[in-house]
Amino acid sequence: MRRWLGDRLGRLGALERRRAVDPGAIPVPPPRPLPELPAATSRDSLDRLRHARGQGLPDVVRLRAGAVPAFPDAVVRPADAAEVEGVLAACAAAGVRVVPRGGGTSVTGGVNVLAGPAPAIALDLGALSGLVRLDAESGLAAFGAGTLGPRLEADLGRHGLTLGHFPQSWEFSTVGGWAATRSSGQESLGCGSIADLVAGLELVAPGGRLSLPAMPASAAGPDLRALVLGSEGRLGVITELTVRVRRRPVARRAEGWLVPSWDAGVAVVRELVAGGAPLGMIRLSSPEETETAMAVGLRGRLWGPLARGWLRLRGARPGACLLLAGATGAPGDRPEAPREALAAAGAAARRRGAVALGARPGRRWLADRFRHPYLRDALLDLGVATDTLETAAPWSALARLEAAVRGALAAAAAGEGEEVAVLCHLSHPYRDGASLYFTLFFRCPADAEEAVARWARLKRAATAALVGAGGTLSHHHGVGSWHAPWYPREAGEAGVRLLAAAARELDPAGVLNPHVLLDPADRLER
Amino acid sequence: MRRWLGDRLGRLGALERRRAVDPGAIPVPPPRPLPELPAATSRDSLDRLRHARGQGLPDVVRLRAGAVPAFPDAVVRPADAAEVEGVLAACAAAGVRVVPRGGGTSVTGGVNVLAGPAPAIALDLGALSGLVRLDAESGLAAFGAGTLGPRLEADLGRHGLTLGHFPQSWEFSTVGGWAATRSSGQESLGCGSIADLVAGLELVAPGGRLSLPAMPASAAGPDLRALVLGSEGRLGVITELTVRVRRRPVARRAEGWLVPSWDAGVAVVRELVAGGAPLGMIRLSSPEETETAMAVGLRGRLWGPLARGWLRLRGARPGACLLLAGATGAPGDRPEAPREALAAAGAAARRRGAVALGARPGRRWLADRFRHPYLRDALLDLGVATDTLETAAPWSALARLEAAVRGALAAAAAGEGEEVAVLCHLSHPYRDGASLYFTLFFRCPADAEEAVARWARLKRAATAALVGAGGTLSHHHGVGSWHAPWYPREAGEAGVRLLAAAARELDPAGVLNPHVLLDPADRLER
Repeated sequence: MRRWLGDRLGRLGALERRRAVDPGAIPVPPPRPLPELPAATSRDSLDRLRHARGQGLPDVVRLRAGAVPAFPDAVVRPADAAEVEGVLAACAAAGVRVVPRGGGTSVTGGVNVLAGPAPAIALDLGALSGLVRLDAESGLAAFGAGTLGPRLEADLGRHGLTLGHFPQSWEFSTVGGWAATRSSGQESLGCGSIADLVAGLELVAPGGRLSLPAMPASAAGPDLRALVLGSEGRLGVITELTVRVRRRPVARRAEGWLVPSWDAGVAVVRELVAGGAPLGMIRLSSPEETETAMAVGLRGRLWGPLARGWLRLRGARPGACLLLAGATGAPGDRPEAPREALAAAGAAARRRGAVALGARPGRRWLADRFRHPYLRDALLDLGVATDTLETAAPWSALARLEAAVRGALAAAAAGEGEEVAVLCHLSHPYRDGASLYFTLFFRCPADAEEAVARWARLKRAATAALVGAGGTLSHHHGVGSWHAPWYPREAGEAGVRLLAAAARELDPAGVLNPHVLLDPADRLER
Repeated sequence: MRRWLGDRLGRLGALERRRAVDPGAIPVPPPRPLPELPAATSRDSLDRLRHARGQGLPDVVRLRAGAVPAFPDAVVRPADAAEVEGVLAACAAAGVRVVPRGGGTSVTGGVNVLAGPAPAIALDLGALSGLVRLDAESGLAAFGAGTLGPRLEADLGRHGLTLGHFPQSWEFSTVGGWAATRSSGQESLGCGSIADLVAGLELVAPGGRLSLPAMPASAAGPDLRALVLGSEGRLGVITELTVRVRRRPVARRAEGWLVPSWDAGVAVVRELVAGGAPLGMIRLSSPEETETAMAVGLRGRLWGPLARGWLRLRGARPGACLLLAGATGAPGDRPEAPREALAAAGAAARRRGAVALGARPGRRWLADRFRHPYLRDALLDLGVATDTLETAAPWSALARLEAAVRGALAAAAAGEGEEVAVLCHLSHPYRDGASLYFTLFFRCPADAEEAVARWARLKRAATAALVGAGGTLSHHHGVGSWHAPWYPREAGEAGVRLLAAAARELDPAGVLNPHVLLDPADRLER
């Protein structure tokens, strides 16, 4: 990986191996006074440090450097919805900012405690965990909002059920966080996004409680669930979610093909989705990502050249793209169904000139699906920063969008005499379009603030290009505080006013996560 | 049909054959003064009469009696979104109520012009009609909001495409109306509800314009489309919709089975939906509806007894329920796919003891799918009123819900010494529940106001039972002015406040369709 990055970013060998500072050695200022809060309240320095930021690149860069700009004045852990209500009432009355926090894995500055004159608490919802109710007949399960992915699937697994929502952060993120950020999992093609999976919810806010019962569908006014999903804490704190569950798969298969070009791969994906192919996942890698996967896959130096040689023999040319598809089979389904679905996908791919790679790339993807972010720290040790950007757009806009983002990143890097390596894949396909997911690598200045500034310049350039080319600001990461400057462009001035009016109704004091979504200030470097 | 109704409602033969008054003979009071409006404005009496009410039972009863309680002071027909904007600005400034109107087929009082001190206009959007843009690559088509169902499908048909949204009102309703009421079509199982089909939209309001571009999916804040869908004119006037289209089916098949009981039928439907059966439609009739379909189907006296005899021979017992399923095949699909999907549905039904009825009941359903409402006038001629109620709920609540509605209707009718005949079917199934649709028949007093009062008593009893038993206030008819008294129970007090705050932001003067959705007054008899 080091060699691959050196080839692309240049001068990498000259960088020294870096180490993160010991978190226990990071100075944390004393907390400011807070009103009496009716829930477990911690003022421990390490606890406050751990709840200061999310998992975005600048968060990690600053944490590694011991240069965290602000801390919550307490970490508050309510035991139930009534305690959440009490804490919010006390904070609203005293003007204390509240940053609701599930797993804290936001990569958009969505859970960051920013410096400001008002005191702030991190509201850790981890105690609202586990299965609350199960209506097996209807396939509905109610969970505390703080339930982590593995706990949620374990609780459902005991009943032979699954939710099927697997974002890359699954190990460390919560169902409440998935809902608050309107997230999508890797198998959204088969199971839907969290917006499709949430049937009912409970929201607690200083200005009232919203209790939306689980309904399979309704025409009773606008869908208020949809107003809460993606509200990122601005409307209130989600305390409970009733989700649509299904029979737990007994089989999960994924296979890979090498299609001759990006355009051919896009055509295959569009055709499969338009035909309603019963797949759980489809992912198409750009030529660069395809080459990288071969060069720096977990098998590393050994597997890469061997695979390249073999594929050249099979007729794969430069520009070829890796296409992965996955299918699952539940008990009661015909056992051969997943294999048949993948065979049909393979037939569609071969009609566009694809070469079959068999089950190995699929097994690798399944094994590594939650592990790629772990690489980030190792890369930072090497002096390389990596971040991701994601969007979605109609099929007709995707080619222009991909070129615009890539071009903007290259130009922004060139402006400071640097290189940026950009990988891209298409995933989460829909009948009318798909998500594009970009992974970028750039040389990380040793100084944390310089590193954050470089990241911010790249991020601004890419985001402006992305929305300018017709992409949505985010397909599954959310708006947070970092994307907020571009949000009015997407929602429109009237749309922002609508949401702000709704937020004022439930949070008249404006204490709930005030820096995300509706605050258009540029906080990329805050 | 007359005999069947007489058996159930009693004393029917004594009623005289009634006739509707000639609409041209209905007195229409002179219109009140209005400000200058920048769009075609009609003050013609017959035009105003035709735009006074929707198509609910009390609307029709009053129209037939020539006793329409209030009229718009003008019918305004904007030619484009700019004219809509101008009209709304003028009305907001002058305090003129605006009732937006697509096809006018509301059965919830959603387009009714109610008596009031402020003048009122009907805003007829019929001129905003037809295909505006087509992105064939993405499967996205933009239509003027006033486009009627047949025009929309004809415009798409020229490109080999379909929307697949077929509410029973399809012939006379518009895409804007479908969106404003968050409607579902008969093939929602295959194509989704209008909320699934709308990718982007344009909304014009006195307080701003909302322009939401078509996106396949997004995590950029709450889904503002979902806030507009179902807003019934309270947030603004939808002028354009971008919808997700698909390849036009070349084959449409439906078949029927007789399952031994309601519970067995429900089990079949649940199993098919949980397994992701590729069907476009499933409908399960209650034993009463099944018997009625046999007794008073279009083949009438001849077919009924013959069919009953044949079915008895095949082993069908009292309590048997008609199950219909439909499937479509698009060009490029495997041509045998619809037949296979129905064969799989039939196998599931037979495992629960069903008897196959073949393609005849399906053909009848396809032939009559938009025609049943036409019966209403003929029944009123006979002195029989008919209305429908619909809801949805999780699977576990359906049996209790069905019994509660049936019991409440019977008790309310008995309270005035009357009978009510109630048919029911389950349709629009989801993984977590389904819609229940009730058709009721009762003796219609000759006096229009007495008839409306009897209807209102039945409607109040049934609606209270329905929401009390855990059903949503409406699965696809909307809230309108008639369901509004129960809306706070479903949305919650905080939910109503949220929506009211959003409405104030876009309509500070409160002139937009002010009597629907958020006004909880009981207007069933207004």
